[in-house]
Amino acid sequence: MAFDYGIAAVGGAVVALLYAMYLFFHVRSQDQGNPRMVEIAGAVRTGANAFLSREYKVIFPIAVIIAILIFVFIDLPLKTNGATAAGFAVGSFLSAVAGYVGMATTVRTSSRTAQAARKGLGSALTLAFRGGGVMGMAVVGFGLLGVSLFYLAFESTIVATPAVIAGLGFGASLIAMFMRVSGGIYTKAADVGADLVGKTEAGIPEDDPRNPAVIADNVGDNVGDCAGMGADVYESFVVTSIAALILAALITEKNFASTLGSLEIYVTSNQLLVYPLLLGAGGIIGSILGGFYIRKSIKKDPMGALNIALIISAVIAGIIDLVVSYYIFNGSAFGYYLFASAVVGIIVVVVIEKVADYYTSYNYRPVKFVAEASQTGPATNFLAGFSTGLQSTAPSALVLVLAILISYYIGYAASGSNVLIGVYSTAVATMAELSLTGVIMSIDSFGPITDNANGIVEMAGLEHGVREVTDELDAVGNTTKATTKAFAVMSAALAAVAIFFAFQSEVNTQIAASGGLLSKYHLIAGQALSFTLSDPRVIIGLFIGSLLPFYFSSFLIQAVGRAAIQMVNEVRRQFKEIKGIMEGTAKPDYARCVDISTTAAIKELAKPALLAIATPLVVGFLLGPLALGGLLIGSVVSGVFLAFMMTNGGAAWDNAKKYIEMGNLGGKKSEPHKAAVMGDTVGDPFKDTAGPAINSLIKVLNTISIVFVSAIVLFALFV
Amino acid sequence: MAFDYGIAAVGGAVVALLYAMYLFFHVRSQDQGNPRMVEIAGAVRTGANAFLSREYKVIFPIAVIIAILIFVFIDLPLKTNGATAAGFAVGSFLSAVAGYVGMATTVRTSSRTAQAARKGLGSALTLAFRGGGVMGMAVVGFGLLGVSLFYLAFESTIVATPAVIAGLGFGASLIAMFMRVSGGIYTKAADVGADLVGKTEAGIPEDDPRNPAVIADNVGDNVGDCAGMGADVYESFVVTSIAALILAALITEKNFASTLGSLEIYVTSNQLLVYPLLLGAGGIIGSILGGFYIRKSIKKDPMGALNIALIISAVIAGIIDLVVSYYIFNGSAFGYYLFASAVVGIIVVVVIEKVADYYTSYNYRPVKFVAEASQTGPATNFLAGFSTGLQSTAPSALVLVLAILISYYIGYAASGSNVLIGVYSTAVATMAELSLTGVIMSIDSFGPITDNANGIVEMAGLEHGVREVTDELDAVGNTTKATTKAFAVMSAALAAVAIFFAFQSEVNTQIAASGGLLSKYHLIAGQALSFTLSDPRVIIGLFIGSLLPFYFSSFLIQAVGRAAIQMVNEVRRQFKEIKGIMEGTAKPDYARCVDISTTAAIKELAKPALLAIATPLVVGFLLGPLALGGLLIGSVVSGVFLAFMMTNGGAAWDNAKKYIEMGNLGGKKSEPHKAAVMGDTVGDPFKDTAGPAINSLIKVLNTISIVFVSAIVLFALFV
Repeated sequence: MAFDYGIAAVGGAVVALLYAMYLFFHVRSQDQGNPRMVEIAGAVRTGANAFLSREYKVIFPIAVIIAILIFVFIDLPLKTNGATAAGFAVGSFLSAVAGYVGMATTVRTSSRTAQAARKGLGSALTLAFRGGGVMGMAVVGFGLLGVSLFYLAFESTIVATPAVIAGLGFGASLIAMFMRVSGGIYTKAADVGADLVGKTEAGIPEDDPRNPAVIADNVGDNVGDCAGMGADVYESFVVTSIAALILAALITEKNFASTLGSLEIYVTSNQLLVYPLLLGAGGIIGSILGGFYIRKSIKKDPMGALNIALIISAVIAGIIDLVVSYYIFNGSAFGYYLFASAVVGIIVVVVIEKVADYYTSYNYRPVKFVAEASQTGPATNFLAGFSTGLQSTAPSALVLVLAILISYYIGYAASGSNVLIGVYSTAVATMAELSLTGVIMSIDSFGPITDNANGIVEMAGLEHGVREVTDELDAVGNTTKATTKAFAVMSAALAAVAIFFAFQSEVNTQIAASGGLLSKYHLIAGQALSFTLSDPRVIIGLFIGSLLPFYFSSFLIQAVGRAAIQMVNEVRRQFKEIKGIMEGTAKPDYARCVDISTTAAIKELAKPALLAIATPLVVGFLLGPLALGGLLIGSVVSGVFLAFMMTNGGAAWDNAKKYIEMGNLGGKKSEPHKAAVMGDTVGDPFKDTAGPAINSLIKVLNTISIVFVSAIVLFALFV
Repeated sequence: MAFDYGIAAVGGAVVALLYAMYLFFHVRSQDQGNPRMVEIAGAVRTGANAFLSREYKVIFPIAVIIAILIFVFIDLPLKTNGATAAGFAVGSFLSAVAGYVGMATTVRTSSRTAQAARKGLGSALTLAFRGGGVMGMAVVGFGLLGVSLFYLAFESTIVATPAVIAGLGFGASLIAMFMRVSGGIYTKAADVGADLVGKTEAGIPEDDPRNPAVIADNVGDNVGDCAGMGADVYESFVVTSIAALILAALITEKNFASTLGSLEIYVTSNQLLVYPLLLGAGGIIGSILGGFYIRKSIKKDPMGALNIALIISAVIAGIIDLVVSYYIFNGSAFGYYLFASAVVGIIVVVVIEKVADYYTSYNYRPVKFVAEASQTGPATNFLAGFSTGLQSTAPSALVLVLAILISYYIGYAASGSNVLIGVYSTAVATMAELSLTGVIMSIDSFGPITDNANGIVEMAGLEHGVREVTDELDAVGNTTKATTKAFAVMSAALAAVAIFFAFQSEVNTQIAASGGLLSKYHLIAGQALSFTLSDPRVIIGLFIGSLLPFYFSSFLIQAVGRAAIQMVNEVRRQFKEIKGIMEGTAKPDYARCVDISTTAAIKELAKPALLAIATPLVVGFLLGPLALGGLLIGSVVSGVFLAFMMTNGGAAWDNAKKYIEMGNLGGKKSEPHKAAVMGDTVGDPFKDTAGPAINSLIKVLNTISIVFVSAIVLFALFV
């Protein structure tokens, strides 16, 4: 029976991938516009390809070495037939593919969206949304495909040694972190550099072809916002799936039947394993159907249309989830309980988007507050944006805490007070949240596509009405980008909590398997090692974990700062040395700027990546599993708020600037506008580099720990 | 025997207070300078007094209500003879007194220091240091006096019900938080407001008498940096003492004699209780003697001289601690173990000061990096300062983690693996760290005194050479202020960890005392409630706790922003409406600006204060002690890094500006200087409002939880 349902999950993944292909060819069949537009889009595509291939060349040998280490130190001792290393290879490969596909589509969609904008808002909106859809469907398709196939191939191994599946998650996380960090540095080095000289010093508008950094800036939107976000959300999807699978395997393996009474039938077969995968498939169907709402006939309020598409997707996914819950759990009450958890996850999507929208859209008080603070200069603007970001952490925390609390107690109540099933229920909610990734990513990628389209309209000098259409879509894109980041942060936090419980159980499984370890940890047979706050190692782990997002961010922000200064100096040099740039008679040297961003992004990757990979291993091997457990939770509890602060604060600065540009408080070129432009410059690396990278950091820490848990626990026996 | 030693601790406190009085009269006997200087100093004193009396009027009724609540809900049910409420009253009263004394001295010292500066560096240095000494000695004197007397009066009650002593800590914390929050808002509203219009718009120098906000700015230095810092460090001292006492009482009460073998003699008498108090007395003697090193004959390198004074104090304190350890523990190995922990605490003081110095002094790379980033404008300056603050969290965390780890394992090893004694040993280290408060505060208060003296020199138009002397001392003061903040943050973190363990033990004492509670928590008799990370309530508590410093900071930064904007508008109005200000023919309306700061500081106190008081109670009563325990640790693990980031980052911005003003990178009035001034403006509320207030927040959360622990645990029985 389980096999059939596993096939159904694979089927869902295949549907997503087929639909992504259909959308891709549909987009490619559209009119590319005039030769100038084709030329610009080509330059951006070349830059983006060059960056990704350089990045992949750096990543490949690292990934191979790690795969070998995993095989030797994990798979061989555990006799898992190379499953962990294989998972790692598959996870990282598919992550790289998802990132590439996303980027390849968006670079192709922008010029066509610019061209479509000449036909009207509906046409441009639909095309940009479908372009984003390629990425969205590719991400969930590859994510679900990898996990489902792995599940089908290694089903019995997973149940016997749940940690093997963590390899898949670690592969996905590692690549996602690389893409997030380097993509984030790339895009903001170019953006900040371009803005500082172009807008602030030379006084030329954004995306002006006279700015030497303009192509690098557009490449950055693609490698950062598209490839980076794609890899990130792919990772969230995979990590959440494997957290759910590991928890399900633990419950199944431990065979709680005797203690759970009426729950017996569920935990002795594989329903708990396949259920989260089917929720993923349900979300895919919902996302495809909801997306049909976006049509060329839409004439106004693109934001409203996107919201309706999201709601339709959510409702359809909910209905499918209900059916799935009914069939998998044979119409029992337990199935309805878990369905209730799934509904919690779906509601979280809608609520967290509203919270982010409130703090980042210029229709509400917070962004207006930031805009008004610009009247007294950049300093008050900085403080206002920063404090708005800080303020946004509270409602976000409330949603997070309620989601954990409610979903946990649903599972706890459904199972007659079983803690693991409570946590599994939280994983189910997270899975339901992430099942909507398809439509969320369509809405998100919409942002960079229209941003790029806007750039092409500007650089190609298209007629005035077109710019108005792309401008309107760009503003919507700014808001959707911000709200999607909140979605990503929230899912990272929920996934990390679920994964921590899996980690904890794995530690105890390993300890129980070895008699020597029991005495080492002062335990008696049958007793579990408790990650209690009364053990100073746990406290120390919490401190170290909480530190990591702060320290990690410092590298990223400094990297952007350093690279941006290089970019500023290069642009200043070109303005000075290449005569005729400002008059438009000479062409700037775009390639030089592209090269600065590329080199900086690759070079600056080393330190933060090493920090993320080495810290959990060093802490685990030196201070033991208790400290490592503390580290994992510590990194989530501080990381999630730092990430919310940065992504929401950054978007608030951005939209405060947009609000002034709409003619408020003196409009463009006024003193408040100058202050707001500076605020936006500061917010850029917050919201597009450091903030989103924290998600990946949290997940890398969790997945690497779970992969190496057996070695860490055994090592503790000898030290 | 214990009684005698308790008297010795009181004796140490009396010595500190007598020495404070001596210094006070010594300072007051110095020459006040010319009538213009007397007039300015008088205006500042009047403003500061007016603020403090308004603030105390607001605090008084709140404190009375809380004392009554504590008496009714805690003392009556626990039959503790009103000890908790009495402690609360004493703690808050002495906190208010310590703040007042500090401020009263510094306002009197500034004009005299300005006058002394006419005689040379050594005279000014010595006077400023002695002025700071009044505050330092008052803080430790009142701190140690309160705790020692309370110990002598309620010795048996403390051993029976250790939580009663937490009232003292809660009183100190609450007032400190009020002073930190409102003082911080006051000082930075004035400072930022004055800078934004004065330096940035009107182009007049700092402390120029033509600036209407200049008196408010000087008042702010006194109420924020002096009264606020005094109450804060007083609080740290008291909270750490009581954490040590509670742990000692728990160990004594539980009478571990049977399990501890050779440790028997120590835990059946009261040595563990009195030992930390004597360490406090040792630090007092060390601080007094070390301070003698600062003499009028010092001609150059004031920073070096202050450092030597600190080292001498530390060495003398260490020697006294060795003697104390020998006598209290009868020359046993256990005594030497604890002495080793005390040494760890003393070393922490020196190391953390070095770390903060590295990140905040312009002699090193980080501040130069911030200064260089100013060349590309305020945005890159802002990013550089922010990332420097983030970067500084890592070495600070390392010191913190090592201090906990080493001091814990010393106690753990000394007692044959007793966890409570391990934690007690951490409290001993913290106590040894804080015993140096006397000299640290002298060095710290030195900062605002010279800052004010500098202002008086400028406003009174004294001769050129004088300004050079006070300028040099002011720059040193900036660094010492920054390093002292690191000391305060570190001690808050260590104290909070110790207090959390006390909280945890108290929870279990309460549960054990009630049979009904055991089954409620699914425990069997003799089993302790574990604050384990596998309980979702603990995880949720960690999230809520970690959120608090972020959310709390947002109120403070917004408050400063709002008040500063008011101030800017007022100053702009006066420049426009009062003719002749800029020519010096008309006097600005200083009082109006003083009033704006005062009103804002009091008004903006409500929300953050309510957040700090209500959250632990709501979480405790609604979600129970497990969630509350998580909250306490969560607030420390994120709060400590946010605080380090803000205080170090803020000081780095400040000194980057100073570095440029010294003639580097274009010097004063250059574009980089303008950018650096803006960075400094942003850093101000970070380092002087939000950052230090987080310390108080952490301690208030801990002390209020311990005071209400019995009610919270009992309430859990009924819900």
